[in-house]
Amino acid sequence: MPFIERLLSKRLGKEVSPGDMVFVPVDLVYAHDGTAPLVIEVVVNELKLEKRLARNKAFFFIDHASPAPTLAAASVHKKMREFASRFGIGLFDAGEGISHQLVIESGLAGPGEIVVGADSHTPTVGVTGALALGLGSTDVAVALSYGYTWFTVPETVEVVLMGTLKHMVMGKDVALWLLGLKDVEKFHGRVIEYAGDLQAIGLDGLATLTNMSTEMMAVTSVVPPEGLREQTNGSWMGSDYVDEISVQLDEVEPMVARPPDVFNVAPVSSVEGVEVDQVFIGSCTNGRLEDMEVAAKIARGRRVKSGVRCIVAPASRKVLLESLDRGYIDILLKAGCILSPPTCGPCVGAHMGLLAEGEVAVSTTNRNFPGRMGHRKSEVYLASPATAMASALTGRITDPRVFA
Amino acid sequence: MPFIERLLSKRLGKEVSPGDMVFVPVDLVYAHDGTAPLVIEVVVNELKLEKRLARNKAFFFIDHASPAPTLAAASVHKKMREFASRFGIGLFDAGEGISHQLVIESGLAGPGEIVVGADSHTPTVGVTGALALGLGSTDVAVALSYGYTWFTVPETVEVVLMGTLKHMVMGKDVALWLLGLKDVEKFHGRVIEYAGDLQAIGLDGLATLTNMSTEMMAVTSVVPPEGLREQTNGSWMGSDYVDEISVQLDEVEPMVARPPDVFNVAPVSSVEGVEVDQVFIGSCTNGRLEDMEVAAKIARGRRVKSGVRCIVAPASRKVLLESLDRGYIDILLKAGCILSPPTCGPCVGAHMGLLAEGEVAVSTTNRNFPGRMGHRKSEVYLASPATAMASALTGRITDPRVFA
Repeated sequence: MPFIERLLSKRLGKEVSPGDMVFVPVDLVYAHDGTAPLVIEVVVNELKLEKRLARNKAFFFIDHASPAPTLAAASVHKKMREFASRFGIGLFDAGEGISHQLVIESGLAGPGEIVVGADSHTPTVGVTGALALGLGSTDVAVALSYGYTWFTVPETVEVVLMGTLKHMVMGKDVALWLLGLKDVEKFHGRVIEYAGDLQAIGLDGLATLTNMSTEMMAVTSVVPPEGLREQTNGSWMGSDYVDEISVQLDEVEPMVARPPDVFNVAPVSSVEGVEVDQVFIGSCTNGRLEDMEVAAKIARGRRVKSGVRCIVAPASRKVLLESLDRGYIDILLKAGCILSPPTCGPCVGAHMGLLAEGEVAVSTTNRNFPGRMGHRKSEVYLASPATAMASALTGRITDPRVFA
Repeated sequence: MPFIERLLSKRLGKEVSPGDMVFVPVDLVYAHDGTAPLVIEVVVNELKLEKRLARNKAFFFIDHASPAPTLAAASVHKKMREFASRFGIGLFDAGEGISHQLVIESGLAGPGEIVVGADSHTPTVGVTGALALGLGSTDVAVALSYGYTWFTVPETVEVVLMGTLKHMVMGKDVALWLLGLKDVEKFHGRVIEYAGDLQAIGLDGLATLTNMSTEMMAVTSVVPPEGLREQTNGSWMGSDYVDEISVQLDEVEPMVARPPDVFNVAPVSSVEGVEVDQVFIGSCTNGRLEDMEVAAKIARGRRVKSGVRCIVAPASRKVLLESLDRGYIDILLKAGCILSPPTCGPCVGAHMGLLAEGEVAVSTTNRNFPGRMGHRKSEVYLASPATAMASALTGRITDPRVFA
């Protein structure tokens, strides 16, 4: 039985199947400065609550436009701090990091838990073995206030990872490879359950895969922890999965998603040479320690191409400090990178490096629709941190194996 | 004879005196992303130039809103890059640092040179022994295009520093002390020439003093280099100075300028206990190595008070890298500070930490009029990096000697 169905059956004390409407307790609920204002609005003005009725874990994260780049952002942050204090909500303020990464690394979510976040990349948290749903602010306000949410149980597609990744190929390349599938539509409205040689990608890379659930049109993704994985007698394909996709990891090349959307996927080799104005390495997709490590290894003793801005933003203070201790920050700064505090900023065009008209970026983030990172006539190529850093060094989109 | 008069006499080959109108060659001209758009506008649309006629050093600095926090900023940056390339102007792009600091540390200005910058804190460069004038964009456009500027030679006030600073008292405290003088008006429209025990303050601290010329209402300030200093037979007070002020350095206490203006000066002791929401350590006033060192020494092994955002922005990549090598960055990050890339941002309310309504900040910057760093109803106390960091640790305005 798919992991999510087992998880829900266990939590509800009865067997559930795809198509069932379930009403479930929420263990963790969170929102950020892009979505919390509406959550607050609903709680205060619609539900008219004076205090929080739920006993679940609840957190606000000031991560999107932080430290505040505008008066409007400063005002939102202030309102969040005041509401959090009044309603007993935990707060991660500016500079601490990106919500999903903080949830993972702080152990705020775990296997079998049900997590609701007011952000479309909440499924990142599925890497912990939680059922992590990105919901609208109204639904999040209800989960925050009353502790419950409801939904129709989705079918599950199993993605079986097999073998090992080639040198300089990362989880991000696998995510882009999946987005490039002709039948990517099979993920639509379903849960993706990762299985197989998970250690070949590692937890940081797997978090990149779960992170891009929304781009794959899935409801969420999950990496079942060992203890909860069903015994399948040597066959990864369990019963009750609506579909299965196998990925031969050693066949995956460094990939990009070309503008103007995430499905416009191609091998890096097919777009090599495209000139680049800016590179961004960071975000909830690729701001983890592995990402900093790869970027630093490539940048070591080299210089970012003159005329290229290479912005690096670790996804959390912990990633930043660990990168500092390991010497990655030293390497990246000496290579000419711009070190941003942990923030979502550049990924969503909120601050810290918007693109001007006609500019081209390579970015390790998750979306590249027109205007996502700045001007509607700027162009974003999504790629791994390896490809991004290689491109920063040459000033053109570059296969990272050039620097291997 | 005052240094500026000797400098101008030498450059013009004839003796000049206060009140003379002079037409002088400009050795270095610069602008930043706050002022370059108008410089470009004048050069292209008013002067209708196709190329630069001057042979002087010319630089653009992308330092105010960088990396771009808005589409408008991104567009300005792009225009600056294009214009700089076309007109043979040097460019320091996002992440490199603040103009005045880069001019000083890159050796772009030196003793006896005449420098024109499109920023009111250009006098900072007077610490190099240059005549550094902050002019409007139109005058800067002319100096950029033709290589000359003109002005009426100002009178000079000599400020003689005597003795040594007490522990935890810095150049910033001396600057605030001068701003608190009852007869501060005597600096109005004049040049301040620093003399005396300059080594007691050091170059970084002296740059804080020259930086705040505009706040003191002076045209500029200058620290005459040894080679150009007039022999005065043991008396610092030379002839031809319109006035002299002596500062007994050991009488200077840690100072603040309370809201709402720079003249509202008081000892830190008189405002201790005021609760603080944000602390900013950086800017062209106090983003140098000495400032990072003092902040790190106080923060070492301690934590920023919960609920306080402490934003640190080294004034340049060089300061950042040197601070990194010396372990200051490690200490500051582990203490809970937010490390910003080198930028003017927070000082001018451009990005990286605007204040919300009712918030209170301690800032190492140079201005605290209503709205300078955010909302018109926010309050800024100007102070030294020592006082700023001490206040960040306690959450209240604190005399740094508490941590001595």
